[in-house]
Amino acid sequence: MPVQAALTQLTLVGLPGIPNIQPGDDLARLITGSLAQADLVLEAGDILVITSKLVSKAEGRFVDLRTVVPSARAVEVAQLTRKDPRLVELILQESSAISRMRGEVLIVRHRLGFTLANAGIDHSNVGRDGEEWVLLLPEDPDESAQHIRQAIHDLTGTAPGIVISDSFGRPFRVGTVGTAVGLAGLPAAWDMRGMTDLYGRVLQVTVTGLGDEIAAAAGLILGQAAEGIPVALVRGLKLPVGDGHAAELVRPAEQDLYADHLQPVR
Amino acid sequence: MPVQAALTQLTLVGLPGIPNIQPGDDLARLITGSLAQADLVLEAGDILVITSKLVSKAEGRFVDLRTVVPSARAVEVAQLTRKDPRLVELILQESSAISRMRGEVLIVRHRLGFTLANAGIDHSNVGRDGEEWVLLLPEDPDESAQHIRQAIHDLTGTAPGIVISDSFGRPFRVGTVGTAVGLAGLPAAWDMRGMTDLYGRVLQVTVTGLGDEIAAAAGLILGQAAEGIPVALVRGLKLPVGDGHAAELVRPAEQDLYADHLQPVR
Repeated sequence: MPVQAALTQLTLVGLPGIPNIQPGDDLARLITGSLAQADLVLEAGDILVITSKLVSKAEGRFVDLRTVVPSARAVEVAQLTRKDPRLVELILQESSAISRMRGEVLIVRHRLGFTLANAGIDHSNVGRDGEEWVLLLPEDPDESAQHIRQAIHDLTGTAPGIVISDSFGRPFRVGTVGTAVGLAGLPAAWDMRGMTDLYGRVLQVTVTGLGDEIAAAAGLILGQAAEGIPVALVRGLKLPVGDGHAAELVRPAEQDLYADHLQPVR
Repeated sequence: MPVQAALTQLTLVGLPGIPNIQPGDDLARLITGSLAQADLVLEAGDILVITSKLVSKAEGRFVDLRTVVPSARAVEVAQLTRKDPRLVELILQESSAISRMRGEVLIVRHRLGFTLANAGIDHSNVGRDGEEWVLLLPEDPDESAQHIRQAIHDLTGTAPGIVISDSFGRPFRVGTVGTAVGLAGLPAAWDMRGMTDLYGRVLQVTVTGLGDEIAAAAGLILGQAAEGIPVALVRGLKLPVGDGHAAELVRPAEQDLYADHLQPVR
């Protein structure tokens, strides 16, 4: 919509035509090709939000369940949660601890620090029906984000901010929301402590989970599985300069009041 | 930015010129006035995200701490968390249970179901320096949202979706994110179970916390305290028809694996 230039405005655009990619595909080239197809030229301050699934596919993070031999612990946890023991074996391999399990729910602390169901391992939309492929999170999504940022800079001359997002469930709330698992070229959190409020008082506790808010915003476009849009351009965000990592958005377990009752994965 | 009409696009605009309001002020009239000032005309499908603080102020949810007499339980909890016993008394009055307390952190289950620090009671930006005012969450934010929606419809002929948002901290993650505490005229969650993925398989567990994603997206505009923008217009979201409530985004305690160790408020 045309709006007055003085207004604070933010625009998100779903990038078209990014195909169902294969391991080894060049994401930076696919994304810049899609931008060109949409007549969009990257500007300073632009951010690209990319689903972790797209990154995982490009990085070949597929595992065929038929190749997985479950440990005794995986069999035990699988019985408790009524899951496939081979899938549970992969979940435990990806995790540093079990956070909660009940019914068919298995929530772990991922080796990257994220607390999430099934270690983020994805059954849906990974293709290759009839086989038993699942898709792990990227090996190091902050590194992936940095790599994609550099590659897009090399292709276009502009280095966008990158957020790699996944849909996380959360305690206390119904439904998943887009959450940052990888990030480069922007601050992960925005520490407003020390800034003053409207009345000149110093703000006490305001650290904004910026990367997560960006991922959640993009989730409004990316979340629509039927449409299959894996990348969104975010334009207009006025951010402090910074080059953070999504890992900074993980609260250390010892500071987390809900990181209790952790159970070993082995 | 001008983009091809066929692209999936979402725009957020911060509404200008909404003043520091007083109890009894007519929010619908202020918001429609701001839209007119910005040359924006509401369209079908538009959503307005309003900070809970603005709604609370209009509803006069101020309490002067000097009028609060702490109970013995409030004094006990205040000692454990190094807080003002009068503030703790208000927190406990607003809550059904204590979720966690440690250090200076007091996380409660609010009577509305939300699990959050200090029952969402706000010290900052509530004005009236020198006095000891604090600001409670709206009495019934879903009802507030419905009321504002109806009043804007009466003024403009268009009924926008309404999301009342607050900044919530969350387990496991650093920083606050915009979260829906009140909602009207759109679905609160988006249940995609039964829809098929790109490969025709039925999605198993995809319920999107739509209201929270919208609140988080708007948080990128509203979260900037120094600028003091309390309302954002969200345009371009293609949603299923529905009229939900933010209360639907609260996971019932008995289904929540982290709603354990609840302690009484009395």
